[in-house]
Amino acid sequence: MCELLGMNCNVPTDIRFSFSGLIQRGGRTGQHSDGWGIAFYEGRGCRTFHDPQASCDSEIADLVRSHSVKSLNVICHIRKATNGRICLENTHPFTRELWGRSWAFAHNGRLKGIKSRRLRFYRPIGTTDSEHAFCWMLDRIRTRHPEPPASDRALREIIRELADEVSALGVFNMLLCDSRVLYCYCSTELSWLTRRAPFGKASLIDTEMTVDFRKETSPDDIVTVVATRPLTHDEPWQAMSPGSLVPFRDGLRVGR
Amino acid sequence: MCELLGMNCNVPTDIRFSFSGLIQRGGRTGQHSDGWGIAFYEGRGCRTFHDPQASCDSEIADLVRSHSVKSLNVICHIRKATNGRICLENTHPFTRELWGRSWAFAHNGRLKGIKSRRLRFYRPIGTTDSEHAFCWMLDRIRTRHPEPPASDRALREIIRELADEVSALGVFNMLLCDSRVLYCYCSTELSWLTRRAPFGKASLIDTEMTVDFRKETSPDDIVTVVATRPLTHDEPWQAMSPGSLVPFRDGLRVGR
Repeated sequence: MCELLGMNCNVPTDIRFSFSGLIQRGGRTGQHSDGWGIAFYEGRGCRTFHDPQASCDSEIADLVRSHSVKSLNVICHIRKATNGRICLENTHPFTRELWGRSWAFAHNGRLKGIKSRRLRFYRPIGTTDSEHAFCWMLDRIRTRHPEPPASDRALREIIRELADEVSALGVFNMLLCDSRVLYCYCSTELSWLTRRAPFGKASLIDTEMTVDFRKETSPDDIVTVVATRPLTHDEPWQAMSPGSLVPFRDGLRVGR
Repeated sequence: MCELLGMNCNVPTDIRFSFSGLIQRGGRTGQHSDGWGIAFYEGRGCRTFHDPQASCDSEIADLVRSHSVKSLNVICHIRKATNGRICLENTHPFTRELWGRSWAFAHNGRLKGIKSRRLRFYRPIGTTDSEHAFCWMLDRIRTRHPEPPASDRALREIIRELADEVSALGVFNMLLCDSRVLYCYCSTELSWLTRRAPFGKASLIDTEMTVDFRKETSPDDIVTVVATRPLTHDEPWQAMSPGSLVPFRDGLRVGR
């Protein structure tokens, strides 16, 4: 199984603290050593880094760790290959364009039979069940909404329905972003945490690193972090309920 | 105007020598300081790096220069913004998926009226004339060929026709790759060079750097490099003819 990390904020925020913890699980504190990738949104653009190597030994991971990229939405994934060989095209997050927006997707789990679902507009480049599921979801969204739906609620509803349907095929913990909202679907395991004033300190579980967010933030900052398993041991992470779609915008949970 | 660099080879090859010359033109020996980007193909996958900053000062360019990525097809672009503001989503190369293949595109020139062409399947994420032209070309290819054409020749012919049509709107020097063939369209300025045995030395024009390809290659290697202007001063670069599509596969020109 893989590990997921997502971030959604109201001001562009640096993810390096959380990323530093996650990448340890890519071969050092975890067995997810079959590649990793990250997608950072900047405005309407989306910048991705992918590496089919273990993240704990990756030069590109070193770059991401040493280079401050501030972003409103981030999706990151470290891979333990269960379906599809280890290569660049099978490395999450996957990206596609719909409605002139850049969409990114990463998945933890296995899906049985997803590859027999027919596709119309989007086709996988690699061979994972995950990319097929992403293409299928975008296909269905596009078929139902050739133009963006008028309300955010309508989009949330169709994503929830589709994620429920995919999830019935196996395990489907998912992060999906349309460059505005971070959609998190919990099938078995996904936790989240919102950091906002008054900020405090936090220490990573997977490596010795502590940050004092009082020094890194402004009072109005709201930053939500989502991960397969909590990344810090001194903050109030909440587990999402199995079978739930939890969308975040501007750092806050929406649509309840 | 921008500058383009492309590479097509029969064995995965490191582009760092040519890249080191090109990025000097991004603010040091040239005025193309409004961002840069590069797409490397690895198997069916495509890895991109984009930076809206000047390439000569870019940390990500330093990474690309210091990190050996070997690739059969590369497209690189340094930008002098003429249409569309300076931001990540306006930074070439642009990428999209068609037929389960990753396509990458970069453009030098300006196109008048391209944005009034209607689009069906692909929409720009940014605001450049270039990305609109790319979306329009893929739209037309997809409309005519919902499935990949049976012959490489048919695909070359449609790309040639579409490039001619776009070129009539202004200046259209273009690099396009479908993960197999590097299609180069010369509207005004594009040069190329094929390196093969017996290999020799070459020296960059834009920075002091010489490489002895005898030490870097095997006798069977064939590597074609394409650039807006020659990158070395001691090799036999050839100018492409205005109005020509020149496709390369496995390092060699095809379809004459």
